[in-house]
Amino acid sequence: MTDPDLPASEPGLAFAADVFERACASREVIQTVTGRWGTLALAALAEGPYRFSALRRRVDGVSERMLSQTLQALERDGLVDRAVLTTIPPKVEYSLTDLGAEVAAQLTGLIHLVETRMPAITEAQADYDAR
Amino acid sequence: MTDPDLPASEPGLAFAADVFERACASREVIQTVTGRWGTLALAALAEGPYRFSALRRRVDGVSERMLSQTLQALERDGLVDRAVLTTIPPKVEYSLTDLGAEVAAQLTGLIHLVETRMPAITEAQADYDAR
Repeated sequence: MTDPDLPASEPGLAFAADVFERACASREVIQTVTGRWGTLALAALAEGPYRFSALRRRVDGVSERMLSQTLQALERDGLVDRAVLTTIPPKVEYSLTDLGAEVAAQLTGLIHLVETRMPAITEAQADYDAR
Repeated sequence: MTDPDLPASEPGLAFAADVFERACASREVIQTVTGRWGTLALAALAEGPYRFSALRRRVDGVSERMLSQTLQALERDGLVDRAVLTTIPPKVEYSLTDLGAEVAAQLTGLIHLVETRMPAITEAQADYDAR
């Protein structure tokens, strides 16, 4: 498929999987990771292991159901470990796997970039809204 | 607010804005950038400028309405430039601003990581589903 409107592809941008294709499995993973709550859950777990209730407090605004679904998806993708601690009462602790830590590091880099650039972004938004 | 369940905060993780707070403006920007279509639009524009129709073909599966909304949000945040070319007929071209290029570089790093780790992720998913 050659599309004359597409820029010539660069070797550096060639991925093994192709996230641009709607049926590609990597797109689903990217969407879990970068989803509304996936991003925040991974960024929080990059700080250290959390129990469910503490993680829910850290990720301000998430519902119990959404956080539970998010953690399940992240666990299924092999990014988060769920450990049942044999304390009385038993506690469930969530932590990043090695792969999850790699992904979280990329994500926190992105968050850090956006947070440090917020003055420029806020200015751009004000200019846009004043048009 | 000290929460005994929270890991001690590390200086390296202290952000000027705090994406974890639901009212923080940075969270909205992160969600535009990492949203279902924001990610793919930025990753595509990292390849070079696109006209709307070509971008829509590149981001397989996006509707005209969703792509249009996504580009508007990215333009408002100062990440994407919309230029009307004075050709006959006039053409509209989208490209990344400098800030958009920085953000896109972080995102493509994330996409690249997930795509190269897909074998491990697929294996984790199969293990999880077989439980």
